Amino acid sequence: MFRTIEWLDDNTVRLVDQTKLPLKVEFIETSSHERIAESIRTMEIRGAPAIGAAAAMGMALAALESNARTKDDLLDYLEKAAETLNTRPTAVNLTWATTRMLKVARETEGSPSAIVERLIAEAKEIAEEDVQMCRRIGENALSLIRPGFTIQTICNAGSLATVHLGTVGGVVRVAHERYGDIKVYAAETRPRQQGARLTVFEFMEDGIDTTLITDGMIGTVFREGRVDCCVVGADRILKTGHVINKIGTYTMAITAHYHGIPFYVAAPTSTVDMVTELEDVVIEERSPDEVRIINGEYITVPDAKVYNPAFDITPPELVTAIITDRGVIEAPTEEKMRSIFS
Amino acid sequence: MFRTIEWLDDNTVRLVDQTKLPLKVEFIETSSHERIAESIRTMEIRGAPAIGAAAAMGMALAALESNARTKDDLLDYLEKAAETLNTRPTAVNLTWATTRMLKVARETEGSPSAIVERLIAEAKEIAEEDVQMCRRIGENALSLIRPGFTIQTICNAGSLATVHLGTVGGVVRVAHERYGDIKVYAAETRPRQQGARLTVFEFMEDGIDTTLITDGMIGTVFREGRVDCCVVGADRILKTGHVINKIGTYTMAITAHYHGIPFYVAAPTSTVDMVTELEDVVIEERSPDEVRIINGEYITVPDAKVYNPAFDITPPELVTAIITDRGVIEAPTEEKMRSIFS
Repeated sequence: MFRTIEWLDDNTVRLVDQTKLPLKVEFIETSSHERIAESIRTMEIRGAPAIGAAAAMGMALAALESNARTKDDLLDYLEKAAETLNTRPTAVNLTWATTRMLKVARETEGSPSAIVERLIAEAKEIAEEDVQMCRRIGENALSLIRPGFTIQTICNAGSLATVHLGTVGGVVRVAHERYGDIKVYAAETRPRQQGARLTVFEFMEDGIDTTLITDGMIGTVFREGRVDCCVVGADRILKTGHVINKIGTYTMAITAHYHGIPFYVAAPTSTVDMVTELEDVVIEERSPDEVRIINGEYITVPDAKVYNPAFDITPPELVTAIITDRGVIEAPTEEKMRSIFS
Repeated sequence: MFRTIEWLDDNTVRLVDQTKLPLKVEFIETSSHERIAESIRTMEIRGAPAIGAAAAMGMALAALESNARTKDDLLDYLEKAAETLNTRPTAVNLTWATTRMLKVARETEGSPSAIVERLIAEAKEIAEEDVQMCRRIGENALSLIRPGFTIQTICNAGSLATVHLGTVGGVVRVAHERYGDIKVYAAETRPRQQGARLTVFEFMEDGIDTTLITDGMIGTVFREGRVDCCVVGADRILKTGHVINKIGTYTMAITAHYHGIPFYVAAPTSTVDMVTELEDVVIEERSPDEVRIINGEYITVPDAKVYNPAFDITPPELVTAIITDRGVIEAPTEEKMRSIFS
């Protein structure tokens, strides 16, 4: 699997256009931070870790573009670039990455060109940290994933959501590297079908035996013993061990529980939110057209009433273990979460 | 809601073209039994009870077409028509309807035109029996469905699968007639989306408040207390109370069980199979393209590996009650099934 986003030796950035996948594999190569901002805004690149890296590389491109003669001019240009790159207000990784790059620029001594070099190195470092984080998640999962396992996934928490490997993708890929015989069942994940569009594509790219099913088939797949465990990603994990993830995850967790199939959540430490209370979590409800329209065509009555929550909440009693870059938490409780994350 | 298929006073048959729904409501009117055969073959009409009625009306049209001077000529023509109408080999209702019509033709005394009149009356009678069967299912369900209930469904076991009302449709419509405030949540039902395409359409036609969700949302819908019970159809019910129905039903039953939500199966007596053993049930696996392609466009990698079972099996411990035209069987067991159906 290629890298989702990469800093090339000629000081350009290359990223795969995810709006074209899986039918076309097209790359965008640019030396313009505004083009990176556009890619983030139009979701040519998506996934919290991936857009963090994109924003960092965008800041490095801006530094190159600026041709600033003084550090002050460079900082002015970078502050404007940071605003341009923050195109998705709820994406904390964007702010985190641009703030980190600005801090480095301010703290670096020397000529503008020395600062530019330092920013390029920092952007590469942010991307590399992401790859290493995914690899550690995968390595920590090796205590749970056995040779020959077939892993049920939902949505895409794979390479395409990160710089490389992925979170769930890290679990699958590191185990496959180690054992050579890991298989995947990918749930389609309506309404936006990230399982069918992205997860199937990226595991097939890596030669991992992957079977696509629709979301309603999980009961039959579990009953027939076709999978050994579930591994899903997380958008946020609360201190109580409640897991907020793509809609469909909770139904899968209940169905796995009924069949005695282990249900694992793979996520970086940055996903853990030790502050927010369960009752304060607001689940985003998205446009009804996401359900009504597929590939530009209605699949129901155009004015059908729709309920379209984007995420659901899986309680800790359905979670066998949370796999993070800092270690595995089996049967999560608030006490265990505090001991690792406080 | 209009009737799915109807014998008109000018001795033609009118049926709605279900391949065009829900975006276009187009009717086919014909006096040709060959056109009816084509409608069955191309699934312009589908659903076991509906195609039984279609085949019976096709036989009556054939009798009118024949212009036979003798009973023998009429019987010859009808036997050929029966062969033409049996276009879907696994549809037992087709054979059942054409056999019943042939038997009536053979047993009726008098002129060919008298026999033709008798066949027209018999075809109308078969359609009317179906409507009454659905109404009885709906009436029997009134002991379970309370005023103000919101009912979760899957697939389409509505009016469009029968001549009128439907099985699940009968439960919803009779309760709505009685109470005036029944609401429905319809699960999309991937891969073929009968929930989104047909169920939403037909309940909206009747002014019943209907909300479309994707199959993975049921956990959230149940957790949030949005529905009071599930009512699903059945393709076959075994003597043990195992329910074979559209893929996704079993996952819904598990999820309902976890939330303590009643799970009802609405089906005519003809669906009950007191002979076949559970271990002899073979679940049809359908084309991978049903999952890969929607409205003619790929939604995944074109050669993605797919598992596509058409049906699943829900065990009796997950079934709160079976609602039939002969009565309600709560907590089904083989003993209770035998007492009603043997």
